[in-house]
Amino acid sequence: MPAATKRAKAKPSPAGRRGRGRPKQEADSADVRAALLDAARRLFSERGFHEVSTREIAREAQANPAMIRYYFEDKEGLYKAMLQQVFQRLLAGVGELAAGTRDESPIAEVLNLYARTLFRDPWIPRLLIREVLSDGAPFREEFIEQFARPASKLLPELLEREKAAGRLRDDLDPTLGTLSLMGMTLFPFLAFPVAGRVFGIRLDDDFRERFLDHTLRMFTNGAEKT
Amino acid sequence: MPAATKRAKAKPSPAGRRGRGRPKQEADSADVRAALLDAARRLFSERGFHEVSTREIAREAQANPAMIRYYFEDKEGLYKAMLQQVFQRLLAGVGELAAGTRDESPIAEVLNLYARTLFRDPWIPRLLIREVLSDGAPFREEFIEQFARPASKLLPELLEREKAAGRLRDDLDPTLGTLSLMGMTLFPFLAFPVAGRVFGIRLDDDFRERFLDHTLRMFTNGAEKT
Repeated sequence: MPAATKRAKAKPSPAGRRGRGRPKQEADSADVRAALLDAARRLFSERGFHEVSTREIAREAQANPAMIRYYFEDKEGLYKAMLQQVFQRLLAGVGELAAGTRDESPIAEVLNLYARTLFRDPWIPRLLIREVLSDGAPFREEFIEQFARPASKLLPELLEREKAAGRLRDDLDPTLGTLSLMGMTLFPFLAFPVAGRVFGIRLDDDFRERFLDHTLRMFTNGAEKT
Repeated sequence: MPAATKRAKAKPSPAGRRGRGRPKQEADSADVRAALLDAARRLFSERGFHEVSTREIAREAQANPAMIRYYFEDKEGLYKAMLQQVFQRLLAGVGELAAGTRDESPIAEVLNLYARTLFRDPWIPRLLIREVLSDGAPFREEFIEQFARPASKLLPELLEREKAAGRLRDDLDPTLGTLSLMGMTLFPFLAFPVAGRVFGIRLDDDFRERFLDHTLRMFTNGAEKT
């Protein structure tokens, strides 16, 4: 986690009014911060913001609760840092792929990135529903400005480049194409509490491979120049 | 609303322990029940179950609050009746289309049905998120048994028939195909609080037509026999 490490080193004193000063174990401090973020992600995603105490998170991270105050000020600060880390990693990945310097099929790579992320961390959609999409969701504005708005430009630009390269049809609307690609990729995860049950889906390697093959073919056949 | 009317006539005494007996205005009773359901749908979808009182719903429906007790026993009964009505209508529509007795393109009709419903009632996805998909959502089990499970058979069966008729490719997985079709159709609405803003979408007639054309072409090109 280079970003988190760097930030922890560069900004070592966000302790706030009642902070308890810099912790003693200098060498491990970036690890402690990372461990707190990991524990927060696990516990918050399982049970939501209100049901988890900072004490539990510290215990799960094998850290002193004072470290939460030191690095994040309070539970809300830790929670926001956790969400930002999740979505910044995803955005960095999409940005890298959309730069399009690697491969002949950047669409396959974007699909792979989203699917890999979702199969590895299937709690992300639950978190999206609770923190971003629900009415009055508390993290919506930050999610839009820090992740969705920048990400929403990358995919249409990628589709425009694929059109210019003659690989997608000229009349493909890049915004609608982006919505289709994201819909096919994200919907089964957003709807998993229902779709997983009625279709008997298990998020294992076999399903991941079939899902990726199917979705890539559906999108490229659907959008390609004929 | 034939179903609602019929049930109100056939089962005229669900008043419960503290019910106040059959209302006086015999002739209008089915209308009153329907008006209460409509008002409940508008208010619940805007503000959620806990924020709306039965008094407000009765006022919005221009009905006596006692009528809520008479027809639905209490707020929860009204709420469940409202949700059931919404999803039963949608299921009836899909079932009719999936029976496949009308047209050469049943997939276009299914798409049209979903999109027409969502453009007319864009609060349905918000309600789905709150009542079905969120962690611990109260209506999930009923939604699965009464709507999702029966609906989940109709679309794969339809895709199988299209395969048998030679219109879709033989190796199309009907479950994955259903997930793609639903994902392309539903995702922009589920994600509307974010997607609507970052892509500047307005749910008007122009967008509906472009969305339907695009999605139908994306799916049929993506799934057709080549």
